[in-house]
Amino acid sequence: MTLQKHVSLNINVRGLGESPTLAINERIKLLQSQGKKIYNFGLGQSPFPVPAPVVEALRLHAHEKEYLPVKGLPSLREAVAGFHQQKDLVEANPDCVLVGPGSKELMFLLQLVFYGEIIVPTPCWVSYVPQAQILGKRVRLLHTSFEDKWHIRADRLSQLLEGEQDLYRPRLLVLNYPGNPDGLTYTSNELKEIAKVARDYELILLSDEIYGQIHHKGDHVSVARFYPEGTIISSGLSKWCGAGGWRLGTFTFPRSQEWLMEAMASVASETYTSVSAPIQYAAVEAFRGSMAIERYLWQARRILSTLGQKCYRMLADAGVRIHAPEGAFYMFPDFSPFAEGLARKNIKDSPTFCERLLQETGVAMLPGLVFERPYEELTARISYINFAGAKSLAAGETIALHNDLPEEFIQSQCGETLEGIQTLVDWLTG
Amino acid sequence: MTLQKHVSLNINVRGLGESPTLAINERIKLLQSQGKKIYNFGLGQSPFPVPAPVVEALRLHAHEKEYLPVKGLPSLREAVAGFHQQKDLVEANPDCVLVGPGSKELMFLLQLVFYGEIIVPTPCWVSYVPQAQILGKRVRLLHTSFEDKWHIRADRLSQLLEGEQDLYRPRLLVLNYPGNPDGLTYTSNELKEIAKVARDYELILLSDEIYGQIHHKGDHVSVARFYPEGTIISSGLSKWCGAGGWRLGTFTFPRSQEWLMEAMASVASETYTSVSAPIQYAAVEAFRGSMAIERYLWQARRILSTLGQKCYRMLADAGVRIHAPEGAFYMFPDFSPFAEGLARKNIKDSPTFCERLLQETGVAMLPGLVFERPYEELTARISYINFAGAKSLAAGETIALHNDLPEEFIQSQCGETLEGIQTLVDWLTG
Repeated sequence: MTLQKHVSLNINVRGLGESPTLAINERIKLLQSQGKKIYNFGLGQSPFPVPAPVVEALRLHAHEKEYLPVKGLPSLREAVAGFHQQKDLVEANPDCVLVGPGSKELMFLLQLVFYGEIIVPTPCWVSYVPQAQILGKRVRLLHTSFEDKWHIRADRLSQLLEGEQDLYRPRLLVLNYPGNPDGLTYTSNELKEIAKVARDYELILLSDEIYGQIHHKGDHVSVARFYPEGTIISSGLSKWCGAGGWRLGTFTFPRSQEWLMEAMASVASETYTSVSAPIQYAAVEAFRGSMAIERYLWQARRILSTLGQKCYRMLADAGVRIHAPEGAFYMFPDFSPFAEGLARKNIKDSPTFCERLLQETGVAMLPGLVFERPYEELTARISYINFAGAKSLAAGETIALHNDLPEEFIQSQCGETLEGIQTLVDWLTG
Repeated sequence: MTLQKHVSLNINVRGLGESPTLAINERIKLLQSQGKKIYNFGLGQSPFPVPAPVVEALRLHAHEKEYLPVKGLPSLREAVAGFHQQKDLVEANPDCVLVGPGSKELMFLLQLVFYGEIIVPTPCWVSYVPQAQILGKRVRLLHTSFEDKWHIRADRLSQLLEGEQDLYRPRLLVLNYPGNPDGLTYTSNELKEIAKVARDYELILLSDEIYGQIHHKGDHVSVARFYPEGTIISSGLSKWCGAGGWRLGTFTFPRSQEWLMEAMASVASETYTSVSAPIQYAAVEAFRGSMAIERYLWQARRILSTLGQKCYRMLADAGVRIHAPEGAFYMFPDFSPFAEGLARKNIKDSPTFCERLLQETGVAMLPGLVFERPYEELTARISYINFAGAKSLAAGETIALHNDLPEEFIQSQCGETLEGIQTLVDWLTG
């Protein structure tokens, strides 16, 4: 909606609009309701249902009505700490876990309370910059490149910091891997090198590992292993547990950064108070884990990995610059090899690229611009999630876990996704 | 916890601490775990369980996992609008309903986006001032008096505004009735007079009616009836529906103030995203209402009203300055008749009053200071909720709904509350 002319609004929020990931979803629903065929690669939502034991736990705890402690239900904080201990081999203390209504809200609180510079490599998740804008702050963007797999390199980071007047001003560096929007991750060696620079300059790292459990090979490594004293791990139920709509995120702090958690909890107590009690009780089941949940994760990874590789090959074969996905359910292709032909159609920037693609083919993606990439760069995010998650999990049960999924599986279970990718390829090359 | 010396924190949040209502709850739990007998009049939480059909609705919708629209599930926005149409006889449009994770969070967003003066009569709810502090803003407090039943009077408001240099600067006035911390409400005539002043000066009213359904006689009237074009009604599940820990609040806007809702929704989309999906589905059941829920409300009101009157008489008979409660589950007594004796015990302000009372008797209340009353004023909030809500509702079922509850009922069901009040009286008069 367009706002009226005379309103008394904080200048930081005027013209803010709605978060692009949410806005595209609402736009797609509108187009679909008008009868248009849409290939929805827009929203970053897990295609899979919440694992059955976790849903059952919510049913069991539906009557819980008490205001829970601001930082979270003690048994949940324990389960989250245990989760990071087991999965990430880091020391995580239940007293240093903060539970919030989504890691997005926790990131907002962190930006609100931290008095220092926030450094974000791009392409980055869509909300860092708008959150800073709301708070009248600025985040410092570090553009990475396709050649560097959209990663921040330790040597470049080190050079940058070395060249500053004030070497030790308070700084927080955001890392996100497997990454949104790129679906790529860091190697242990890369993380070790980043950890070294972080330690040298006393950076705080916010390590957003919300896609950690859907690393396609199940090989996620946390930077907290190499820089435990300065790393905050962000996680939650939204991605690996398929429960985006439940709204539960977690930050796990090192002891020495507890002051940040305490300040965030103070603000939490004056804003959202605590996360919904029944949801927290159910989340205990999710973070404690079980054979059933591990089986679900194995299946989810196998499907995402096989589908991701297939889509990647289709795009790479067509001449798109793209890396093979390693985790999550995203790819961040660069369409610049088609720049000339696109320019003839008057497409010279990522928003126009996505808009025209949507109008002409029904393929919906988010432009590189919303991930803070330069306007003219012909990049976009593909979320390859528009298939029936529950059905594909059930179908996966017919194929022994130690086997790879055959091509026919992806054809029959994720045909719509492949059709959308083919439509994109045809539009590009046609 | 005490923060360390060298931290990089936003100055607006340094020393903020935790919301006093939540902090006292955690303190009480600690004291109880040390074996101390506590009469908990501290926390403002409904003693009653969530109505059974609403819990059942949560169970039925436990699998819902989608990110819901930022402003709320469409069927819930419809139910909330219908609720206000039926209960409050106001025109409420589903498109003008905003659902958030608690009305506290919505109030924070409102303070964040509104560029204008926020006027809050005291005693007021504990979070308005800290929220403003977090945002680096200031709210304008208007002290009311015991004689005025802790109400803002239209003539006083009018005088105040008339005396200003800038008559029409953007202003938002917060009203809360039945009120926290006072348990009192406005008459229709008082609301009409306030509405007139509000219209004259184009004030926006935030009418916090979260206790509306537990007006002790079921006679709640909304100021939106008299000033529909400028009144935002705040409600939620926390109080009348016993679901504080579920975290769901609602703001219902007039068409002409939709710009505020849109700006709040933008910020919501960059922070909490949307309210937990299963909770929203369950809330539809609550706001749609049913015979079962009306019966629950009737019982709840009858118990709160009878208990409130009994506590009031005990305190008034002992010489405490106090008004008979009219709604919610609070009283805000003034202990100044005992000032001389208290001064001899070196008690000269409300925080010391409450602290000494807690230490010497185990009676826990919140001091007037946290409701923004003057430091030296000997006022405090009593939440008369420390009885077994589910058990008392069940016991109430044995007494025909059209009958009053006998004294014995309160004695047997809420004995602990009466004992706490008697302990307070003995300490005062002893």
